[in-house]
Amino acid sequence: MDHAGRLERLEKVLPENNLDFLLVTHLPNIRYLSGFTGSSAALLVGERGAVLFTDGRYRTQARQEVRDARIVIGSKAPHVAAAEWLLTQPQRGSRRYLGIEPESLSAGARQRVASVLRGRMKIQFAPPLIERARMVKDAAEIRRIRDAVTLGASLFSIARKRIRPGVREVEVAAAMEYEARREGAEGMSFPTILASGPRSAIVHGRASTARIPRRGFVVCDFGVILAGYCSDRTRSVHVGRPSRDEQTFYAAVREAQQAAIDRARSGVSTGEVDEAARSALRKWKLAKYFTHSTGHGLGLEIHEGPRLAAGQTEMLEPGMVVTIEPGAYIPGKQGVRIEDVVVITASGCEPLTATEKDLVVL
Amino acid sequence: MDHAGRLERLEKVLPENNLDFLLVTHLPNIRYLSGFTGSSAALLVGERGAVLFTDGRYRTQARQEVRDARIVIGSKAPHVAAAEWLLTQPQRGSRRYLGIEPESLSAGARQRVASVLRGRMKIQFAPPLIERARMVKDAAEIRRIRDAVTLGASLFSIARKRIRPGVREVEVAAAMEYEARREGAEGMSFPTILASGPRSAIVHGRASTARIPRRGFVVCDFGVILAGYCSDRTRSVHVGRPSRDEQTFYAAVREAQQAAIDRARSGVSTGEVDEAARSALRKWKLAKYFTHSTGHGLGLEIHEGPRLAAGQTEMLEPGMVVTIEPGAYIPGKQGVRIEDVVVITASGCEPLTATEKDLVVL
Repeated sequence: MDHAGRLERLEKVLPENNLDFLLVTHLPNIRYLSGFTGSSAALLVGERGAVLFTDGRYRTQARQEVRDARIVIGSKAPHVAAAEWLLTQPQRGSRRYLGIEPESLSAGARQRVASVLRGRMKIQFAPPLIERARMVKDAAEIRRIRDAVTLGASLFSIARKRIRPGVREVEVAAAMEYEARREGAEGMSFPTILASGPRSAIVHGRASTARIPRRGFVVCDFGVILAGYCSDRTRSVHVGRPSRDEQTFYAAVREAQQAAIDRARSGVSTGEVDEAARSALRKWKLAKYFTHSTGHGLGLEIHEGPRLAAGQTEMLEPGMVVTIEPGAYIPGKQGVRIEDVVVITASGCEPLTATEKDLVVL
Repeated sequence: MDHAGRLERLEKVLPENNLDFLLVTHLPNIRYLSGFTGSSAALLVGERGAVLFTDGRYRTQARQEVRDARIVIGSKAPHVAAAEWLLTQPQRGSRRYLGIEPESLSAGARQRVASVLRGRMKIQFAPPLIERARMVKDAAEIRRIRDAVTLGASLFSIARKRIRPGVREVEVAAAMEYEARREGAEGMSFPTILASGPRSAIVHGRASTARIPRRGFVVCDFGVILAGYCSDRTRSVHVGRPSRDEQTFYAAVREAQQAAIDRARSGVSTGEVDEAARSALRKWKLAKYFTHSTGHGLGLEIHEGPRLAAGQTEMLEPGMVVTIEPGAYIPGKQGVRIEDVVVITASGCEPLTATEKDLVVL
């Protein structure tokens, strides 16, 4: 990964944001910038390079993972160590500005940083500079996400084999998760959703101990973390022969998903992609049952920018990797969602793995 | 669970902490006080009761789970909704104090709360009132933890069956995790540690794709989440016939663990329990290889108070549930850790499940 380039680009934009230093405390941002994967760290980025603060447990690991930042091992909380280090730096000019990540530093930690600095620097809320950079993936990241998506997609064959009337949802999920671990996944990127029968109408219906009924939809939404990167995929199958209405319901969601995929390309806004899915469902009078947004970016985290939602004006750019996942949910009755991960290109978008979307009847 | 009693006890101590309201944002604390298990909420506790703020996704769930707090469904961030609600309350007296949880409210969220309140209330960092209450478990919680610990302990039989030379660590972990899910666990309480051969000396050696060597120790440290409560257990086995030195090494750690268990009782400090383990290892000249603390509380979270560490003066009380888990680790060579969960009683402590600690040779 191009940590040196990422740090350099961040350092360059600090002055135009009126910051001398940025204290990075969001762990995925630290990993993105430095490669460090430990669970306790702070990264201080300034005009003369970056410094990673962590503790003795991570001495060996930090040396192995971090090439482009200095490493400081200490016994205090990393944000406190970073603030103390700042005090040792030669003062230039009259007033210096330290940016913090407002959503990733607790109110208590902010206060500890302030009391170490005792007014020697002014603490500012930094804009989401790193999150913005992370939205556009480079080739190495796209390869990693493709690997994760490919492994993730393969788990659906386990679901197809295991989904049968009377089987508990959690057993299907457990079998998928077992396979993911055997294939080298660090874990799942979110709690596996396996929602059968009327539960399929629950958007976030985590696999429960409920038994799969004799007939009805089963929504399977699952993802893995592989080499740090997330996958996300949803398939909805039908147990027992679907009625004409159920077939139409599925076909409508599938059409909406395809409409969104067809619309997604560089220069189109995320809101327009969302609208493509929504207007397809409108034709089927199902738009009111589509109660969430069309998609989200993913990468080191399962939810990243951009958001593909109604009214969003963010423009898609080549290299953005997003989910396209419209659905329809009739409370107490049935739900269907279909989801793929795509990478945005100049001329359109490309699903990150081969994809089959005919309604699977089990 | 006695949510009403917990809320009442918290409300009673607010005045003596100079707080009119406490804004609870740490999700395990919200669950402890109200029963709500959703992923987005704030709970405002004041002299006239508690109010839970969440969003439309959780309307049904909040009504099912929460009996002893009012529920307010909104579309804004829960902490912002709580601050706006406070503005609608009749003002009594001149100056009112709102406590926040300094480690669980971000600097950005604190600022949003402050800008809603526009000085009408003073924001204070609250002491860890709820964490203190949570340290002592009631009978219903101890039953839940016992259930989790019993399920967790049963996974060791899977490890015994699967650990063989040439098998990848992650395969053993995956088989254990599969069984946990099948038995109804929501998930694991932390990433399963399965560290074989020289990796056994890595205290947090997560199951890797490394193959188990022909001989040496394997440290298995694993826990489940069952009905919201965590388990935690470590067993160290030996693959191949252990040498006399290895047997002694294991016996020393076992003796240290027993010494700590024998010392743990109401009225003894957590530091004294830690010292019991440490002094046992000192006799074997292994104390310098015991590089972490002796244990920690657990319950809704895998790490809670109290800490059983050197120099700690916190007194054990009946109903505290803690791990006892000394270990010894010779870098690059071998490690052993033995861990059980015990509940503190007036006269001693009781392991929460039957426990066998003779060295298992596979």
